[in-house]
Amino acid sequence: MAGSSFGTLFRLSTFGESHGVAIGGVIDGVPANFPLGLDAVQSELDRRKPGQSAIVTQRKESDTVQFLSGIFEGKTTGAPIGFIIQNDDQRSKDYEEMKVAFRPSHADFTYQKKFGIRDHRGGGRSSARETACRVVAGAIAKQMLESLGIEFSTYVDQVGHIKLEDLSFFLREAIDSNPIRCPDDNTAHRMEELIREVRSEGDTIGGCVRCMILNVPIGLGEPVFDKLHAELGKAMLSINAVKGVEFGSGFQSVSMRGSEHNDLFNEDGTTSTNHSGGIQGGISNGMPIEFRVAFKPVATVMIDQETIDNEGNKTVITGKGRHDACVVPRAVPIVESMAAMVILDFYLRNKSVTL
Amino acid sequence: MAGSSFGTLFRLSTFGESHGVAIGGVIDGVPANFPLGLDAVQSELDRRKPGQSAIVTQRKESDTVQFLSGIFEGKTTGAPIGFIIQNDDQRSKDYEEMKVAFRPSHADFTYQKKFGIRDHRGGGRSSARETACRVVAGAIAKQMLESLGIEFSTYVDQVGHIKLEDLSFFLREAIDSNPIRCPDDNTAHRMEELIREVRSEGDTIGGCVRCMILNVPIGLGEPVFDKLHAELGKAMLSINAVKGVEFGSGFQSVSMRGSEHNDLFNEDGTTSTNHSGGIQGGISNGMPIEFRVAFKPVATVMIDQETIDNEGNKTVITGKGRHDACVVPRAVPIVESMAAMVILDFYLRNKSVTL
Amino acid sequence: MAGSSFGTLFRLSTFGESHGVAIGGVIDGVPANFPLGLDAVQSELDRRKPGQSAIVTQRKESDTVQFLSGIFEGKTTGAPIGFIIQNDDQRSKDYEEMKVAFRPSHADFTYQKKFGIRDHRGGGRSSARETACRVVAGAIAKQMLESLGIEFSTYVDQVGHIKLEDLSFFLREAIDSNPIRCPDDNTAHRMEELIREVRSEGDTIGGCVRCMILNVPIGLGEPVFDKLHAELGKAMLSINAVKGVEFGSGFQSVSMRGSEHNDLFNEDGTTSTNHSGGIQGGISNGMPIEFRVAFKPVATVMIDQETIDNEGNKTVITGKGRHDACVVPRAVPIVESMAAMVILDFYLRNKSVTL
Amino acid sequence: MAGSSFGTLFRLSTFGESHGVAIGGVIDGVPANFPLGLDAVQSELDRRKPGQSAIVTQRKESDTVQFLSGIFEGKTTGAPIGFIIQNDDQRSKDYEEMKVAFRPSHADFTYQKKFGIRDHRGGGRSSARETACRVVAGAIAKQMLESLGIEFSTYVDQVGHIKLEDLSFFLREAIDSNPIRCPDDNTAHRMEELIREVRSEGDTIGGCVRCMILNVPIGLGEPVFDKLHAELGKAMLSINAVKGVEFGSGFQSVSMRGSEHNDLFNEDGTTSTNHSGGIQGGISNGMPIEFRVAFKPVATVMIDQETIDNEGNKTVITGKGRHDACVVPRAVPIVESMAAMVILDFYLRNKSVTL
Repeated sequence: MAGSSFGTLFRLSTFGESHGVAIGGVIDGVPANFPLGLDAVQSELDRRKPGQSAIVTQRKESDTVQFLSGIFEGKTTGAPIGFIIQNDDQRSKDYEEMKVAFRPSHADFTYQKKFGIRDHRGGGRSSARETACRVVAGAIAKQMLESLGIEFSTYVDQVGHIKLEDLSFFLREAIDSNPIRCPDDNTAHRMEELIREVRSEGDTIGGCVRCMILNVPIGLGEPVFDKLHAELGKAMLSINAVKGVEFGSGFQSVSMRGSEHNDLFNEDGTTSTNHSGGIQGGISNGMPIEFRVAFKPVATVMIDQETIDNEGNKTVITGKGRHDACVVPRAVPIVESMAAMVILDFYLRNKSVTL
Repeated sequence: MAGSSFGTLFRLSTFGESHGVAIGGVIDGVPANFPLGLDAVQSELDRRKPGQSAIVTQRKESDTVQFLSGIFEGKTTGAPIGFIIQNDDQRSKDYEEMKVAFRPSHADFTYQKKFGIRDHRGGGRSSARETACRVVAGAIAKQMLESLGIEFSTYVDQVGHIKLEDLSFFLREAIDSNPIRCPDDNTAHRMEELIREVRSEGDTIGGCVRCMILNVPIGLGEPVFDKLHAELGKAMLSINAVKGVEFGSGFQSVSMRGSEHNDLFNEDGTTSTNHSGGIQGGISNGMPIEFRVAFKPVATVMIDQETIDNEGNKTVITGKGRHDACVVPRAVPIVESMAAMVILDFYLRNKSVTL
Repeated sequence: MAGSSFGTLFRLSTFGESHGVAIGGVIDGVPANFPLGLDAVQSELDRRKPGQSAIVTQRKESDTVQFLSGIFEGKTTGAPIGFIIQNDDQRSKDYEEMKVAFRPSHADFTYQKKFGIRDHRGGGRSSARETACRVVAGAIAKQMLESLGIEFSTYVDQVGHIKLEDLSFFLREAIDSNPIRCPDDNTAHRMEELIREVRSEGDTIGGCVRCMILNVPIGLGEPVFDKLHAELGKAMLSINAVKGVEFGSGFQSVSMRGSEHNDLFNEDGTTSTNHSGGIQGGISNGMPIEFRVAFKPVATVMIDQETIDNEGNKTVITGKGRHDACVVPRAVPIVESMAAMVILDFYLRNKSVTL
Repeated sequence: MAGSSFGTLFRLSTFGESHGVAIGGVIDGVPANFPLGLDAVQSELDRRKPGQSAIVTQRKESDTVQFLSGIFEGKTTGAPIGFIIQNDDQRSKDYEEMKVAFRPSHADFTYQKKFGIRDHRGGGRSSARETACRVVAGAIAKQMLESLGIEFSTYVDQVGHIKLEDLSFFLREAIDSNPIRCPDDNTAHRMEELIREVRSEGDTIGGCVRCMILNVPIGLGEPVFDKLHAELGKAMLSINAVKGVEFGSGFQSVSMRGSEHNDLFNEDGTTSTNHSGGIQGGISNGMPIEFRVAFKPVATVMIDQETIDNEGNKTVITGKGRHDACVVPRAVPIVESMAAMVILDFYLRNKSVTL
């Protein structure tokens, strides 16, 4: 119960540090007899991996997933899927400084204080490298959901102060047409400019990822504590660097009136507006699920920062290592993966709603 | 696993519908031998209950909690605490209309579709009446945390477009000095005006609740999926009408640069800023925990709305019943209760971090 | 996570002490839209309650269950079922002695040492009175299973050294035809004689309960850790006074050869023998589930026993209170209830085995 | 929730099939900062592995565990420990027959029916090969418990009808002094004779493993459903081929009287007898934990058996492959490992019994 597992019926347990031998996981509760496309899983991992474009970290990781169990003659067997991803490029010497100094707004300090020990190399367990395992499980979940007609559209809708205006459902091709994963080329171009500028100053910038999910069956989510958006919210907030999440009208709903905010029903049970973001009373209503996730600027800057060491002495940490100036382009498949795991889990949970 | 339980070691399971015999719950994992102030629990319930002031719903509920077990000679025994709260004022006839019509942006439609049946009276299980049980468990958790020196400050910081500017730690007396639970009297007055105006139009308005928690020990929260803010986020999003949650710098962090956002360490391990909201890498760092919760406007308006019935025929639902024009004043103790349960749970979980 | 909940999808959480206000529980994950016979639930409770016959404890409890939620117009709603059973006959003064002295082979000592406090009245939380709540949940589970054609036969097959020889499937009428709940009248008569003799000496005696379940669908149970018999075994061992459990051939299998023990398949997939007790590889195979549960003699004897008090001083505890000389007749509905909860839980879990 | 995880705070999740690439697991909730002896873990694995002596299966597996995470500079970090064990000797062609035929009293039939697909090679997920992963986690748990002074003695006390009479606490050296792992050489010799005889006939035989645990702190185990012996019982019943488990006086208690069975207290809180097996009211009382586990004879016999194929046609399965004629010698480290995991888990859970 130390926090390395996620999900109730479809459940991922992960392990691995940034600079250990390998990262990996076990997925239990995988529905049996499903023909699994392994290339599609690898393809999602490739969307997350470092070194894809000039604006992301240049760490070289092939990020090749190796499946060890649970798949037989191309189909899932219902047995747990074990998998590993080797850590290829472990330039641990880049991180010698981290052995003693606590990087500001990183997890070095809290891990050291909590556990009394830490694998300082590349942030160890606290590194976002761990999210690769989420993408493996999420890609599997997504394949299953897609076979049910459920569709995802996840993209960058804000970098710094630059916002995407059209918040429609976009196809993967449009999203991946530029390195920002913002489906409007003009906006994407401005975002890329900003990231380059910020990076040239050794600095970083925050951003937002937006997710829409179509054709989610009515009835997913459980009343009271396990509301669909509560679990989606936890999933998002568990991703490194996330500071906030909002559903449907979100924080804008605060200044709205009920008469304006209420989603009136059409005769077919759809609603004329979707301020609810596809969820009412914690349960999907058949409208598109819509939410937005706020990422803070990456904490690793290429600028010297004052900090303290293990003994509380003042020291200076210099910016080194290979990091993203803006995390959201690579966060897109992670957000989508976590969402897919949540939706599949609730889909399976909902099967026992009646005898 | 149908969503009526919350927490890992300190765990609340609730039951009860708005217009049933009673609501109640079981709290398991209660630390033993703790002298429990039962009046303080009732006093928190009184802060949530209807009919406190002119601006909240006039439903008459004494909301008296009756403890059935787990307490012996004034102390917790380690056995589960069972409790019930009778439903006194069940004007079910106010809700006859709801039997067939789906209220817009309520859970009537999704419950009916999910379960194939629903207790329509007052929203049944989906009613916010259920949150009274959270307050009972939260008040117990809070007493335990207070005995450890942990302090809560939870207040309304926004109603509609009106925002509180000073976001300090406020004492309970200041917060409860007005019916809005906004600790600045001038701002509270303007918020109250707005609520009265909105109510006079039969309408409702959204708002935000802010929570600060002082003296949380360093080390609470678990890496990866069970990050402290992920679980706090789930807790908040599970409260009726919540559409978003943000921690520390939250959505504002999106347009900040890393150099500006990073919280630099002081020599004593505190940080000079607190954009992290007291949590780094999912683990408390000893700084104040800070987060904000967005509530949409209450869906029940005193205005006729077009809707559909169980068979998908168009109908009109008229505004009836006794509802809040703005939910945030009564949401304050609910937010605080959920936060207290999460903090206590992680406090207990953290005890097993070493042998 | 303090042990007061049982089940994964169909989940019971209980509370209550022997001499508190009431005992009760919350059942979450109840399949919706099922017409529930409340009288049948009470009738199961009546089979467990004290004072039924001359050979059981004469404590007077009406043991009337009151349902508080989750049922609407005679059907389950999918919302949690909350229920309480008042404690009527709380002769706590009978237990004054227990305040300081530890009764041998009871839980007084371990509760005191674990929690640093205990509600000594009637054993508090450790009293078998708690099992009434299991019967409520089990009776609900059993109704649902019976609607699927699943049938239970649970009876006493041993008291002291007296064993029932015919271990067939017996109908409820045969089982309840005598106060022992042993379906062979002659054997039952000898068992009753033994119990009367033992009781007249102020002593107690052990016994065994056997359970057969017919028509369990093939496929219930999960591989590896959550094998069907592993969970059934846990369920049985969690009942007060149980010291052992065996499935199918059980302890006798130890001296058998594989060629003799193997259950050979018939062409229809049934097996010609059932040494496996209806479970292979942890999964039901469609044959009758069969297991046996050993109960130690009740620890409360009407004979003076040397013991120690809270401070470790020698003292003598005198036999008082109202207790059973043999627990198995009243244990029959408890064993059956726990079995029903396990089977229903796995039935629901099995719904997600494929997409 | 498909059954591949075990434990609450110290939690093992496993994966892997008999003839897949590798088996392995993730251990979460590992107490941090503990110096882990990796050789001792391998040494436990060696006790379980095939090919150790003439009386066990001659499958050749080096069974070398490779740790992938969670350990840094010789100490646990509190991060999950991921590990794999390669499958070296995958003579899958030995199992071609199993592709279509269901082996009697194996899991072939139930897996096929439950999942609609099965990896037939060597039994796939249902193979006892999976227990190697339990030994890895158990060996880690045991090291931690040993550092607290807790000691284990696990040995074979019965093979067929041959029973060990002296049931004391034996040291590892005595237990491992012969291939049977029965600490009395004379009895062990007779057991070995029996196994050789049974094997020469192509047959198999059952056996019992007994476990004693000294110095378990008072207070482990949770009331009601998560009693210490309930969880130990589940742990044992989850091991392949186990048909029964009993604690302390076990099934013998059935014919005992209360006055004889009660464990009277000594002045120091110990008891003069230990019929309770070290557990009262589900909680450890400081006396030795004692239990016994019954293993049925191995189902794979070297004798032709009639059976059916996937389509329900009669066929004959011939005895092939490499199997144990008696499983208990190799089961000893598995029983001990499962027990260690349970004890450590409850040790950690007990830390939150008070604030």
